[in-house]
Amino acid sequence: MTLFALKLEYDGRAFVGWQRQVNGVSVQQIVEQAAARLSGGPVAPSVAAGRTDSGVHAAGQVVLVDLPDRFNVHAVRNGLNFHMQPHAVVVLAASVVGDPAWSPRFSAIERSYRYVILNRPARPALVAGFVWHVRDPLDIVAMQQAADVLVGRHDFTSFRALACQAASPVRTVDRLNISRFEDRVIIDVAARSFLHHQVRNFVGTLKLVGTGHWSAARVTDVLLARNRAAAGPTAPAGGLTLMRVRYPEDPFADQQ
Amino acid sequence: MTLFALKLEYDGRAFVGWQRQVNGVSVQQIVEQAAARLSGGPVAPSVAAGRTDSGVHAAGQVVLVDLPDRFNVHAVRNGLNFHMQPHAVVVLAASVVGDPAWSPRFSAIERSYRYVILNRPARPALVAGFVWHVRDPLDIVAMQQAADVLVGRHDFTSFRALACQAASPVRTVDRLNISRFEDRVIIDVAARSFLHHQVRNFVGTLKLVGTGHWSAARVTDVLLARNRAAAGPTAPAGGLTLMRVRYPEDPFADQQ
Repeated sequence: MTLFALKLEYDGRAFVGWQRQVNGVSVQQIVEQAAARLSGGPVAPSVAAGRTDSGVHAAGQVVLVDLPDRFNVHAVRNGLNFHMQPHAVVVLAASVVGDPAWSPRFSAIERSYRYVILNRPARPALVAGFVWHVRDPLDIVAMQQAADVLVGRHDFTSFRALACQAASPVRTVDRLNISRFEDRVIIDVAARSFLHHQVRNFVGTLKLVGTGHWSAARVTDVLLARNRAAAGPTAPAGGLTLMRVRYPEDPFADQQ
Repeated sequence: MTLFALKLEYDGRAFVGWQRQVNGVSVQQIVEQAAARLSGGPVAPSVAAGRTDSGVHAAGQVVLVDLPDRFNVHAVRNGLNFHMQPHAVVVLAASVVGDPAWSPRFSAIERSYRYVILNRPARPALVAGFVWHVRDPLDIVAMQQAADVLVGRHDFTSFRALACQAASPVRTVDRLNISRFEDRVIIDVAARSFLHHQVRNFVGTLKLVGTGHWSAARVTDVLLARNRAAAGPTAPAGGLTLMRVRYPEDPFADQQ
């Protein structure tokens, strides 16, 4: 058998999330079913860099699968894409993993997510399901001031889902940048790893700053409170996309 | 009654096109139904700047509607958006039209369209229905050379649908620019007006140049042939979006 790293794109609206669930179709299930069809027999469970929630999209999820030796990277990509039809998930690139200790999850050194707010009076017609629609004008200067408070190494208990299973609430946020493009406010965030709902909880709080309901300074108090109830609500899943996962060596460096 | 110009965004997948048809739901029908509900009585037929085909999207279609005097522009926008739910069409902006001779169609001085090709091996998962998926790598330098042939005032019979009802096949293409952004090839085109299927027929031909099946020089012969059979096939509707319609004075200049 050969280990392959896959770079995946998927539309989160179609799935209950990455991980297998009893109540619907998961990305993991579609990938493993396609891998089983391609290899002609059962396959080991696949592992992903990020266990995206229901409704969360991916443009660069990374997944590890174990397949028979007879496939090259193009046959893996094209074969899985054939068998995953018509589901809204595709393999963008595949790569042979030489080191059996390599893990898409534990070897990652940075995950980057993008959250998009559609900031205008009219609801979305072209990008429904891919944005959070916020009617009130957002002040991105204030949002960036608040975001700057969250950059660095902190106890993020205030921004962590109550169901989060991580051993520690301490994480290091490398980047948290707010920008505007036409009627969209774009929130780009990167860290080695995130707590459950951390990005969506950041966005729910930053939106309250952007609308002027909260001051940017209040976010310092929210962070220091170490209390989920001190922060804003969790922003909707559809605005969030897992953009990229970085490793010490890019598994897909030789791909077009 | 007051005439209002509306700027519309819509997802072409949901409709048989702008114009009313017997075989499905049109954007025109949704707009007129909402206008009738808002005004509490029948409304005159609405007129659009561009009669987009089935599957063609709009980010800046312009439409004229006649509504009772009691509504201001915000009430028109928000009221129509309320009544058009849950259809994938929204009013981005509304504006009072003072000149009864103004027409969204005949007063326009420029229409701009964008066509997006997803140029990569994997089919689209995030933008299905909004791109033409072309697997073969496209040479955008050759495509731009071919595009340059099409800029200016020409007889575009070779790029005109056989069913086109325009009196003359002569049009003036102001801009035709090819660019690449990551795995997308973007074709931006602008003219005062277009023949039926003109943009999609341009793209079908430019794609053949991009893949190397045709030389850029051949497009000169295609243009001079004045024969639809000389040009490439019509590109799929989903890649096309009506981006903007320009007028001597921007009806939405005072809108946020």
